[in-house]
Amino acid sequence: MAIDLRSEFQAPAVDAAADAARRVIDALVRSGGMTDADMSAIADRLNAVADDLEAAAPPVADRLVDMWRGDGITRHDPVAGPENPIAPPLEYSAVDSRTIEAVTTLGLPYQGPPSCVHGGVSALLLDHTLGVANGWAGVSGMTAELTLRYHRTTPLFEPLTVTARQVSVDGRKIRTTGEITAGGGTCVSAEGLFIAKHPPRPR
Amino acid sequence: MAIDLRSEFQAPAVDAAADAARRVIDALVRSGGMTDADMSAIADRLNAVADDLEAAAPPVADRLVDMWRGDGITRHDPVAGPENPIAPPLEYSAVDSRTIEAVTTLGLPYQGPPSCVHGGVSALLLDHTLGVANGWAGVSGMTAELTLRYHRTTPLFEPLTVTARQVSVDGRKIRTTGEITAGGGTCVSAEGLFIAKHPPRPR
Repeated sequence: MAIDLRSEFQAPAVDAAADAARRVIDALVRSGGMTDADMSAIADRLNAVADDLEAAAPPVADRLVDMWRGDGITRHDPVAGPENPIAPPLEYSAVDSRTIEAVTTLGLPYQGPPSCVHGGVSALLLDHTLGVANGWAGVSGMTAELTLRYHRTTPLFEPLTVTARQVSVDGRKIRTTGEITAGGGTCVSAEGLFIAKHPPRPR
Repeated sequence: MAIDLRSEFQAPAVDAAADAARRVIDALVRSGGMTDADMSAIADRLNAVADDLEAAAPPVADRLVDMWRGDGITRHDPVAGPENPIAPPLEYSAVDSRTIEAVTTLGLPYQGPPSCVHGGVSALLLDHTLGVANGWAGVSGMTAELTLRYHRTTPLFEPLTVTARQVSVDGRKIRTTGEITAGGGTCVSAEGLFIAKHPPRPR
């Protein structure tokens, strides 16, 4: 069952622009054959886009209020946020009432060892997914401790399943586990301790 | 003492284009006031840049050989790679023969809780920095286990110091620690176990 806990307050065009920026990031890391002049022209075009976006951007304090409007999971985070070009982005489905999963395929911008996902990127995806699993299970919080075990390399260019499950809630202590699998085998597993508190949303 | 262990095989224009893409990512996450039509035009311009880059990109297998040419730390990774728009990028200095550090300030694309760095982004920065410290100390490897402890929130928009130190080498087992500090206080600390092996570079 697909789930969407995300707040919805911006326009489809914002997601489309983030998608296009994702294509630019991937193509830049894949590129290698351009002349200096051609690549300088690419830089000029990207700087012109940035100039126009920056000229229209609200003050950061205002943007912070706006981007935290509403409840639920935000749309701008660097893992599942469709508005954030850094995010692959992950799209979550419910497995059961305390377990979620997402399937994603990562390209060269997320590379660590040759043709493999960066170990820190796996940590980023798991930390976030454990947090979303807590939200889905009903009690979420801030990461206090996270332990990652790397069992084998995680491949680029192949479907990865990122899973997380809330294991227990004891007072304010939440324990959550997760893993990244490829081809049915576990690449990375994670155990997290979360504390049930949240910094206030900007108003 | 500034250190640069990175291989150098592409042109300054490639770094300039990645810098420009970084500006686009930041401005997209900061934006909020554009009309749908204006944002659709931004998406069109970014897609046109991606089209041109993709048309000139070599096959991925060729690009993999090229991006892993030479020795040393790569220039395309998602933490310190100047060629990767996802990377802030971190620039490392040597503290002593086994310790390195980098100072960086992160903006909205790296946000977790309001105005704070995403816990998974901190994990990404620390995993990579521990790995670079191993390279600097002379024996590096793959992450086998990584434990992160979150002591307080890590602020956006303020200088962060990311430090890592190789603690011991016992056979193929390498132990490395690190932390992220802000204003002199520890925000996140990390302990890593690495195994001294490397997948082969593509040839």
